[in-house]
Amino acid sequence: MALIKLTPFCLLVHLCCFGLFVTNVLGAKARHFKWEVDYKYDAPDCLENVVMTINGQFPGPTIKARAGDTVVVHLTNKLHTEGLVIHWHGIRQLGTPWADGTASISQCPINPGETFVYRFKVDKAGTYFYHGHYGMQRSAGLYGLLIVDVEEGKKEPFQYDGEFNLLLSDWWHTSTHEQEVGLSSNPMRWIGEPQSLLINGRGQYNCSLAGAQNSNGSGQPVCTFRGNEGCAPNILHVMPNKTYRLRVASTTALASLNLAIGNHKMLMVEADGNYIEPFWVNDFDIYSGETYSVLFRTDQRPTDNYWIAVGVRGRQPRTPQGLAILHYQSTTASKLPTLSPPDTPLWNDYARSKSFSNKVLARSGSPNPPRTTHRRIFLLNTQNRINGYTKWAINNVSLTLPPTPYLGSIKHRFTTAFDQKSPPDMFQNTYDIMSPPSNPNSTYGNGVYMLKFNTTIDVILQNANALNANVSEIHPWHLHGHDFWVLGYGEGKFSKKDEAKLNLKNPPLRNTAVIFPYGWTALRFVADNPGVWAFHCHIEPHLHMGMGVVFAEGVHLVENIPNEALSCGLTGKMLMSNKNHN
Amino acid sequence: MALIKLTPFCLLVHLCCFGLFVTNVLGAKARHFKWEVDYKYDAPDCLENVVMTINGQFPGPTIKARAGDTVVVHLTNKLHTEGLVIHWHGIRQLGTPWADGTASISQCPINPGETFVYRFKVDKAGTYFYHGHYGMQRSAGLYGLLIVDVEEGKKEPFQYDGEFNLLLSDWWHTSTHEQEVGLSSNPMRWIGEPQSLLINGRGQYNCSLAGAQNSNGSGQPVCTFRGNEGCAPNILHVMPNKTYRLRVASTTALASLNLAIGNHKMLMVEADGNYIEPFWVNDFDIYSGETYSVLFRTDQRPTDNYWIAVGVRGRQPRTPQGLAILHYQSTTASKLPTLSPPDTPLWNDYARSKSFSNKVLARSGSPNPPRTTHRRIFLLNTQNRINGYTKWAINNVSLTLPPTPYLGSIKHRFTTAFDQKSPPDMFQNTYDIMSPPSNPNSTYGNGVYMLKFNTTIDVILQNANALNANVSEIHPWHLHGHDFWVLGYGEGKFSKKDEAKLNLKNPPLRNTAVIFPYGWTALRFVADNPGVWAFHCHIEPHLHMGMGVVFAEGVHLVENIPNEALSCGLTGKMLMSNKNHN
Repeated sequence: MALIKLTPFCLLVHLCCFGLFVTNVLGAKARHFKWEVDYKYDAPDCLENVVMTINGQFPGPTIKARAGDTVVVHLTNKLHTEGLVIHWHGIRQLGTPWADGTASISQCPINPGETFVYRFKVDKAGTYFYHGHYGMQRSAGLYGLLIVDVEEGKKEPFQYDGEFNLLLSDWWHTSTHEQEVGLSSNPMRWIGEPQSLLINGRGQYNCSLAGAQNSNGSGQPVCTFRGNEGCAPNILHVMPNKTYRLRVASTTALASLNLAIGNHKMLMVEADGNYIEPFWVNDFDIYSGETYSVLFRTDQRPTDNYWIAVGVRGRQPRTPQGLAILHYQSTTASKLPTLSPPDTPLWNDYARSKSFSNKVLARSGSPNPPRTTHRRIFLLNTQNRINGYTKWAINNVSLTLPPTPYLGSIKHRFTTAFDQKSPPDMFQNTYDIMSPPSNPNSTYGNGVYMLKFNTTIDVILQNANALNANVSEIHPWHLHGHDFWVLGYGEGKFSKKDEAKLNLKNPPLRNTAVIFPYGWTALRFVADNPGVWAFHCHIEPHLHMGMGVVFAEGVHLVENIPNEALSCGLTGKMLMSNKNHN
Repeated sequence: MALIKLTPFCLLVHLCCFGLFVTNVLGAKARHFKWEVDYKYDAPDCLENVVMTINGQFPGPTIKARAGDTVVVHLTNKLHTEGLVIHWHGIRQLGTPWADGTASISQCPINPGETFVYRFKVDKAGTYFYHGHYGMQRSAGLYGLLIVDVEEGKKEPFQYDGEFNLLLSDWWHTSTHEQEVGLSSNPMRWIGEPQSLLINGRGQYNCSLAGAQNSNGSGQPVCTFRGNEGCAPNILHVMPNKTYRLRVASTTALASLNLAIGNHKMLMVEADGNYIEPFWVNDFDIYSGETYSVLFRTDQRPTDNYWIAVGVRGRQPRTPQGLAILHYQSTTASKLPTLSPPDTPLWNDYARSKSFSNKVLARSGSPNPPRTTHRRIFLLNTQNRINGYTKWAINNVSLTLPPTPYLGSIKHRFTTAFDQKSPPDMFQNTYDIMSPPSNPNSTYGNGVYMLKFNTTIDVILQNANALNANVSEIHPWHLHGHDFWVLGYGEGKFSKKDEAKLNLKNPPLRNTAVIFPYGWTALRFVADNPGVWAFHCHIEPHLHMGMGVVFAEGVHLVENIPNEALSCGLTGKMLMSNKNHN
């Protein structure tokens, strides 16, 4: 898809209508956006609800840029009482750690009525997205796509005739405000399974597009549309015998998903903004925080249309499939596909999931990981109780974020801003990951893993049994400020003998990796990006319940943090303390 | 009621359990409170809902102090994403305008995780309350009582044997977050009438305490309680043949109320923290923002109990009465009153309401108003449309609060922080207040009425017809930082001839006064309190829709504004701009 070329007139129109304008600086462009965030009533799945919007749109506008461009987003908070930040998921923020958009970590929340300017370079082509990273504002609908094309004149290592974007999410009819209160209650009230799955913000509740065709639609009536509903399905208009790129991103609050296109095989080519060794699939899993590009050829009967189906994996699905339509332009878009939607694989067929994850490998020519590590951090994922409250903890510490952003408090050495004691690099080697914790008590904490600059860090994410017997959940872990190499997935507790099995030959670079039930996942990255970076389970309620850690590296090298990023907490006090202005 | 005397041990207990401790400084005391605000699930009217709480309590703890004491509240925001302030309703904040607790006016909202210290003198005995003053957090349940007794050794001008407090509020089952979105939508979605009326945070939904007895209970079943429900009614335990003081405050979001005690006459003695000329009533109206003290004698048959009933006035009531029980200790508390609850007067019997309001006059010996005024400001109250959005406007300006608190932006002369043009002192004298506005368009604005320090200001609040024909609503206007004299209430449009009828002899001092449908209300106050002060309709959704103005006086005399109050917006930028700290 060609980069949008803006004429000066068009530029003005865009500035006014879409809050977008572009300035040209030595080839690379600065792409400016003016965004206002507010709640409005909308009906993403045909049922009316309060939704978080950007410039009135849900999902937010898709940002398109080229590698090397600078994205500049003037973000104005039009909420009544809530703060706001936006995280640019997958963008490493090289040199701009204050623009990472994580409240309490990289910046203070933007107050109502105020504007914060995010300015960062998109250095690497790929499929990214953005989303709220404060409270549970992502779940409330604050998300959108960020597509970075290759530099002008450069080529992707594969060819295609057109492209489509699918942003996947899950949707509840209970407000995230109420969800937050429930999660923080004693006893905890779980948010339950989503009411709907959304594709590009569109789902259908209490009806099924495919009706009786759909084995996962649980006998729901067929949806009827007048034609202009915001919850009408996405239709991908394709020409026969062409190759298309489908960019898919999952920003679900909870659901692990699987995507398939009826009768069409797909070639996996990109994961989290990194090229992978191509391989063919009939369907693929995608966890919250992940992105993929696939190629597919429109080589099926051109007088038919085909379902694109998204279903829940990893948790007993109580949510109907999300559907979109692949429309061959040789027929009419309103013609329902003859074939029923592809079935989603069994939710608990983890062997199948693991087999897929293990096939994702770096495309030859990708950067290789360092051969050895300087530090290996084991992170045990457990469900716990603190004073009766249900929490998730890492090495027995449940993360509670402080009011002063770490980036400022580490830079300015505020030793009272957070626990100065590092959280542990290990857990007790007698811990039985196969059983509920024998002592489920845990503690709150906000300590930081201080990483020596430019060292190689291994993380072994270790899954375990949750509070109830025979329960171990999937957790997709996302790292800010970095890609990591996924060195391998394994069963049970990581042990010395697993070390030899780690893949140092062609491990994929990613920013999100899953741990499977009762398993471990080994990651490696180089702590070469000065800043403070969240590393956390991308399931929104799990993070809310403490499932994350904080890494810091080379913060002394960070210069020119804008005051606006640090105007709260102890850094705010410090910045204001030079003299009494009254 | 005797002041709580705290022994050192008890003091420690209080500090831990109730967040209260007291320090003695030269007779007057500093009363310290440590408060944390959070949402929790509760069931104020027996139906579960999310409620805003202080230290887990709803309503918030009652503050008790003596005139001359200093109240110190360490307020910590434990909300996830929302800012927070608390306004001390009726306290004039002499010398501490930054402690008035109005977001955008006296301070920046307190960010999540942060603590702000409110420190102010309660200079005058009386019945007060406190509440959230940001977004619609008052409606969410953020309120409590503030009772100021006379100085030690001094006496009230009336005698009584005991006292009780009743904090009145109204309650919805829709969250205030959703209400806010609805009010800000086009078309506007009105919040509707409350589901319940609460007395000290307790109401009963879908059942009636009085059952068939209660003519206003609409045939609801009788409530049954096991005994420890948080929504069980308040019981006031009294001894026969005694005199009790009942302190009543209304913090309703919407409802105008009337209160009566079955078979007991009441003597009105205090209004809004000011003594009034005593007069007897069978029932009395109380508007949102008002407080009253009444005395009553327990001179009825001591083998019976009696209902205290609160019902809606001024709007067609769709909400059952709120009930509490007056329990003569000569009988059992569980004995239901023999008499049915007193009926609430007809909602639209405005003649009765006006008659009551006109009886509220200053107790002899109260301060008299200046004989003449320096400036008379007419404030026309109209319902309007701006770009299709329904708003309330004053002299055609619908108030939208800026991100920088006025107290800071006026003090530091930030001319870009708000409209520098004063809003008008008058409206067009041809305006027909009896009909819907011929041109309903209005504009947003955030200009300030700059009042010359120490001058006398008259305000004529002028009511008018709303957008629909034959609709003119009640609006209780509340002034911050001052009491005003209520010089009179009148019908139709205020005119020259009304001037002679103004009461300069014994007008009551109050901080809240109502305008009746199609009528006017004349107020006088002296602009002698350096600061910036909100003056607004105390109906929460009306204020949210722009129904307020801002007064400023003597801001150049305000010294020592704490940096914490100004750490946002342009004042935050200024305070941080001295040098680059990175």
